[in-house]
Amino acid sequence: MNKLEIQEIESALKKYLPHDRDLRKKLFESMEYSLMAGGKRIRPQLVLEFCRICGGNPAQAMPFACAVEMVHSYSLIHDDLPCMDDDDLRRGKPTNHKVYGEAAALLAGDALLTLAFETMLSPESIRAVGSDRAARAAGELARAAGSRGMVGGQMIDLESEDRQVSLEVLQKMDEGKTGALILAACRMGCIIAGANGEQLQAADVYARSVGLAFQIVDDLLDVTGDAALLGKNTGMDSERGKSTYVSLLGVEKAKEMVEQLTHTAVNALSVFGERGKDLADFAIALASRDH
Amino acid sequence: MNKLEIQEIESALKKYLPHDRDLRKKLFESMEYSLMAGGKRIRPQLVLEFCRICGGNPAQAMPFACAVEMVHSYSLIHDDLPCMDDDDLRRGKPTNHKVYGEAAALLAGDALLTLAFETMLSPESIRAVGSDRAARAAGELARAAGSRGMVGGQMIDLESEDRQVSLEVLQKMDEGKTGALILAACRMGCIIAGANGEQLQAADVYARSVGLAFQIVDDLLDVTGDAALLGKNTGMDSERGKSTYVSLLGVEKAKEMVEQLTHTAVNALSVFGERGKDLADFAIALASRDH
Repeated sequence: MNKLEIQEIESALKKYLPHDRDLRKKLFESMEYSLMAGGKRIRPQLVLEFCRICGGNPAQAMPFACAVEMVHSYSLIHDDLPCMDDDDLRRGKPTNHKVYGEAAALLAGDALLTLAFETMLSPESIRAVGSDRAARAAGELARAAGSRGMVGGQMIDLESEDRQVSLEVLQKMDEGKTGALILAACRMGCIIAGANGEQLQAADVYARSVGLAFQIVDDLLDVTGDAALLGKNTGMDSERGKSTYVSLLGVEKAKEMVEQLTHTAVNALSVFGERGKDLADFAIALASRDH
Repeated sequence: MNKLEIQEIESALKKYLPHDRDLRKKLFESMEYSLMAGGKRIRPQLVLEFCRICGGNPAQAMPFACAVEMVHSYSLIHDDLPCMDDDDLRRGKPTNHKVYGEAAALLAGDALLTLAFETMLSPESIRAVGSDRAARAAGELARAAGSRGMVGGQMIDLESEDRQVSLEVLQKMDEGKTGALILAACRMGCIIAGANGEQLQAADVYARSVGLAFQIVDDLLDVTGDAALLGKNTGMDSERGKSTYVSLLGVEKAKEMVEQLTHTAVNALSVFGERGKDLADFAIALASRDH
């Protein structure tokens, strides 16, 4: 969970991208444009850190860490497409389809999702961690990314556009849209390290708590943060007029939940002793971030 | 390679689809709409048959057979989208996005691609074939489906729209667009059966020959078949004005190539002795089909 590690993740991501320069050049450039567009690299960091604290070798977990980021990156490209959110900007830069056109952006997303599995199931990756752990970790990511995970969450999001939903629906949507990938990241790190059941269980509790807290903080920042100062202080997702944790719970109760969830996340790490410190700090930092 | 087997494939495909009926209902229906829309199921049959002739148990290969069909099905959904081929009909029925809308069609494609890996890497599938074969076969499909395989071929297709290309480019495009998945299907069947190097090598030659012959026959049928009788007898892909094997080679030379490729495919099967008969018949039937 440090600057150096992020650089290592960036180099590895770049290495796993296709580099031939032929008639497929535009596809490869479009994949690279989004995958290398920065971001906090939270998910790969969680893979590496859980691998480390379970006594594994983080270098062996790198293909799996990068795979989670590839899935995250593909989901953003497809989310930004005109038929979805129709966004022109992502992290201050033109979205993929604005630069490469819709067709190439669609294919770049498809290719990044597939590259995640190519990377995890390459002969080198299988050799490094053994086929048992490789297959289990890749299966974990597949389930998290699929129709019962991330894509399912995106569908719930589409279905609840422009209307108020219950707290239960909102939570189910977020468990899919953002929670599933965070949970998979933490579990995959454990699996690569050969973690025991108690450790996996702790990773589950940590991931679910951090994932939900992350989402509530997002909603809070829309009301109380910089965005709010710019006039977006309605407590509603301004783009869509849909329910948020803040609109459903109120600011005070939402803040309480973040505190409680962070407490649960930190407590879950006790099974790792001193080695859990970085992950505890990470959960606390996420809860108190201001952007 | 028979009617009964196709029914088994259809049942298995249906079984692997998600069946919950909640807010994600539309996604699940959209996935089912395309995956269960019929088709010849050539790719899964190739997986099962190569598994059988290499001495494996085809039942164990079923998740892998279905996975190839899921990837094929997702590629058709995305190919039909307005930003790609913008097709309204597929196999005589409205395309996925015509029924469910573009957003749901995009997500259904994403979800079917992911479901392929969920299916191959489920605990049951891994248990049945062992993690070594499961990981290798899933890796094979990932590479075939990705930016250096199928999606790469689709990109070459986009880049060569509305212009004449060389035979070399045409072949590289088809190796990606259709060849890669056929090759993966044959190889995956071998891998699940624990085939030796000689058998895998034979599967490679068979798959490459059949894959290319299949494509040339498609082009020939556009000139000499039913489609031609309806006025599409230009020897050019009518929709796009691009090169085909017939426009580049002429009808006679194209027919010769099909004959030669079929001969090569059938010859490659000699290593399997009598057991290769069904696959030989299949190659011959493909070459002499009239639609």
